[in-house]
Amino acid sequence: MKQTLIFKSKPVITGYYSIGGPKESNGVIAKYLDKKLSTDTIDEKSFEKAESKMIYMAINGAIEKANKKDQEINAVIAGDLVNQIICSSFAVRNLKVPFLGIYNACATFAEGIAIGSTFLEANQMENIVCASCSHFSTAERQYRYPLELGSTRPPLSQWTVTGAGALVISKKGDGPRITSSTIGKVIDFGITDANNMGAAMAPAAADTICAHFKEMDVSPNYYDLIITGDLGTFGSRILKDLVWEKGYDIENQHVDCGELVFNINEKEYQGASGAGCSSMVFCSYLIDKLIRGKVKKVLLVCTGALLSSLSSQQGESIPSIAHAVSIEA
Amino acid sequence: MKQTLIFKSKPVITGYYSIGGPKESNGVIAKYLDKKLSTDTIDEKSFEKAESKMIYMAINGAIEKANKKDQEINAVIAGDLVNQIICSSFAVRNLKVPFLGIYNACATFAEGIAIGSTFLEANQMENIVCASCSHFSTAERQYRYPLELGSTRPPLSQWTVTGAGALVISKKGDGPRITSSTIGKVIDFGITDANNMGAAMAPAAADTICAHFKEMDVSPNYYDLIITGDLGTFGSRILKDLVWEKGYDIENQHVDCGELVFNINEKEYQGASGAGCSSMVFCSYLIDKLIRGKVKKVLLVCTGALLSSLSSQQGESIPSIAHAVSIEA
Repeated sequence: MKQTLIFKSKPVITGYYSIGGPKESNGVIAKYLDKKLSTDTIDEKSFEKAESKMIYMAINGAIEKANKKDQEINAVIAGDLVNQIICSSFAVRNLKVPFLGIYNACATFAEGIAIGSTFLEANQMENIVCASCSHFSTAERQYRYPLELGSTRPPLSQWTVTGAGALVISKKGDGPRITSSTIGKVIDFGITDANNMGAAMAPAAADTICAHFKEMDVSPNYYDLIITGDLGTFGSRILKDLVWEKGYDIENQHVDCGELVFNINEKEYQGASGAGCSSMVFCSYLIDKLIRGKVKKVLLVCTGALLSSLSSQQGESIPSIAHAVSIEA
Repeated sequence: MKQTLIFKSKPVITGYYSIGGPKESNGVIAKYLDKKLSTDTIDEKSFEKAESKMIYMAINGAIEKANKKDQEINAVIAGDLVNQIICSSFAVRNLKVPFLGIYNACATFAEGIAIGSTFLEANQMENIVCASCSHFSTAERQYRYPLELGSTRPPLSQWTVTGAGALVISKKGDGPRITSSTIGKVIDFGITDANNMGAAMAPAAADTICAHFKEMDVSPNYYDLIITGDLGTFGSRILKDLVWEKGYDIENQHVDCGELVFNINEKEYQGASGAGCSSMVFCSYLIDKLIRGKVKKVLLVCTGALLSSLSSQQGESIPSIAHAVSIEA
């Protein structure tokens, strides 16, 4: 059974907005960000409230950039890493707009674009916002250790992005277009190290990418860029090996959002991660490249590790997923 | 901007399966359940693993009843209340089927049917599974107190269902059909008592139900039944009042899944709740009524309280949501 959806109506990206935290605002993609934060609390009393404010600002910013009013938005499709996706739900409370909450960890952004594009394709809606966010401090204290503990980070770990990204996708308008999407399967290679999520997610990314090539009958060089979400340096190497074994060479096209965010020689080891990683990078650096015609065909492959701190405590391995979305200028 | 989607292709329910825990298997809807569990651990080492096994059994059961093979299923759309929806993700790991994880608390089941129906309407897929589950013991220890504490339950509380339900919806086949869906907005009436979720969710249910009547230009008696997810006894009374204030009388049509599950005079006070409440009741008692022609037109309105234990600890009120799905025999 095919995993790939082809969007004949080619939904168009009419608005986008990206926000980065203080660390992200000093990194490689800083100059493409719509909003650079100087603090990671944004005058809020908790990190969770700050994260919620970030995605709210991103959603509003994207709607504004698309020249739309809230009433013209049919739905917000969003999610985040915090338990019960409260950052997204609480953000949308301030908008009088229908809401669909989703969760596929760091693959949430591509999942949202796939679902949103299908709503447009079904002729059911006009404009949809797809958004995701993450925050280093909410993720760290929920998934790992209290921040005050100052734990040493293991070398295969990644650094959760403090950031958010939102897109408005529309039936009508000008901009890059979404042409297809490949929905991923849950793949579990038995990795149990919650500090090595690149290795856990790489097999899922490889599975989805190869399914996309096969079902669309294209080779890797059909795309100018194949961008994974947050495999990090080590995970990216595993991905290229796994895809190579199945007969595809993506060496020339592949970049990873997680590898792009921070300056090298910092303490993030394998790079960035988080549900806000791919959305922030896509809505800043990559959309800029698409709009200015520097790249024409992009395959965005967001990758998610579907663990929880409880599943790790109960000795479970890390099932992972990857969803792909094809965007053409 | 309209919230209601009309499905011209009228996706058909070709398979369904319901599971209830020991307490549910002695309740009002027991005789309609496909599977009655005698233990709430189902030979698993943790309640979370047991919950995951339940939804896995429900998904498999629905696929089997629809006379389909796993390979004929284009996607599983599912979610649950456990942090990072691990019960659903881990269940789908055992199936080689694309997965879309969703979360709108106890409104998850209707959200899944709305998204799934749109995928079919967009001519993108053939068969989709929509499922949700909950477990008294995973919810209790995650949202409230350790089970061992034996806390006294306050009188406005509800009892989380141990159960799961799954539907197969298809482009072709015979069975009840999904004709429309109204996607809810996040509504927050400022309720802060996490033990009174009926009151928090009732305004969201009222908002969605009234939007549905208005946009579809129908009156309450168009439907034989208007079934809310898990408002419980107190929440149901509030709903009927709120809807009445807006000019609609649903007294004759309204039932609440939460009020149906358990025998009265037990310690559940306001009735049942949980993401498995509406899916278990719909996939047993209600589907039976639809198939046997006892009811012809049903509006299923699943209601979700979008809180987390953290949001309550941080003094937040409880934003809520409700999604409606119209099903006709």
